[in-house]
Amino acid sequence: MHGYTQDKENYLKRLRRVEGQVRGLARMVEEDKYCIDILTQVSAVTRALQAVSLGLLDEHLKHCVAEAMAEGGERADEKVKEASDAIARLVRS
Amino acid sequence: MHGYTQDKENYLKRLRRVEGQVRGLARMVEEDKYCIDILTQVSAVTRALQAVSLGLLDEHLKHCVAEAMAEGGERADEKVKEASDAIARLVRS
Amino acid sequence: MHGYTQDKENYLKRLRRVEGQVRGLARMVEEDKYCIDILTQVSAVTRALQAVSLGLLDEHLKHCVAEAMAEGGERADEKVKEASDAIARLVRS
Amino acid sequence: MHGYTQDKENYLKRLRRVEGQVRGLARMVEEDKYCIDILTQVSAVTRALQAVSLGLLDEHLKHCVAEAMAEGGERADEKVKEASDAIARLVRS
Repeated sequence: MHGYTQDKENYLKRLRRVEGQVRGLARMVEEDKYCIDILTQVSAVTRALQAVSLGLLDEHLKHCVAEAMAEGGERADEKVKEASDAIARLVRS
Repeated sequence: MHGYTQDKENYLKRLRRVEGQVRGLARMVEEDKYCIDILTQVSAVTRALQAVSLGLLDEHLKHCVAEAMAEGGERADEKVKEASDAIARLVRS
Repeated sequence: MHGYTQDKENYLKRLRRVEGQVRGLARMVEEDKYCIDILTQVSAVTRALQAVSLGLLDEHLKHCVAEAMAEGGERADEKVKEASDAIARLVRS
Repeated sequence: MHGYTQDKENYLKRLRRVEGQVRGLARMVEEDKYCIDILTQVSAVTRALQAVSLGLLDEHLKHCVAEAMAEGGERADEKVKEASDAIARLVRS
């Protein structure tokens, strides 16, 4: 059980939509669509993935990190460090 | 014919790999994998898409924009404006 | 007292360095330096500011959010929502 | 003479404003302001710097790159490579 488990169907639906969007990108390349239109579409996919990340992270803080903090001690510090590292990767990617 | 046309197979291969990665993300959610591991994987997909965008943009400048600039006049200005707008969307997404 | 308070001198030093870097950017423009060199320098400043943000956020999770979570209840939910919103702004800027 | 030269005063004004914003950030830290409020302000500074970058890049494409493209040959390729590298740094920072 993780933070996102209760919302699993929602995340699966969004990821399937992203998968379809990426397939659409390949089709645009296949059909020699205009570069700028492909770029616009890539930005849309990136934003959709970012929204998935931000959602997962929010659930992670609300559940996994909150639980570790309730227990306190070293495990709480570890969980915050892990979350901060994930946030840094997200911000820098 | 667009800037990326000569490299079409390469772009198709990369997009198919991204599609597989997104399917992998859905599988991770399906199998209740740990949130942070999913986030790490989403960052990898985002970076792969970003690399596709930067490649397409480079080809676009080298070919479509260069051609418009060789012709000069209004069309050149239009092409630069369009490219700058695409860059802004990329930077902000 | 906030999360970053114990590291206040460190943050002040980093922000003063960023201020100097921004002044350096203005000097580059003033002296008609090459655009690409200015852009490289702007990226360095942006990364320095990002590092400040990620540091502040880490301290915020470790202290302010952790405290609210120890208390539990509505205030904990509020603090996570607030942190998630800040992360989203960070990721999207 | 570079692309941004004709707009120099505008860029200097914007950079001086950014400098003031960074000084404001230091003051917020000095006065122990709330972490989240500082983070919001850092995002605003980052966006202002990004807008400066996008402006400089647009001018660079319009002038320096356009000129090199009019000349054609190796120098044009070099200029596009240099611009693409700067865009990549911008997107990844």
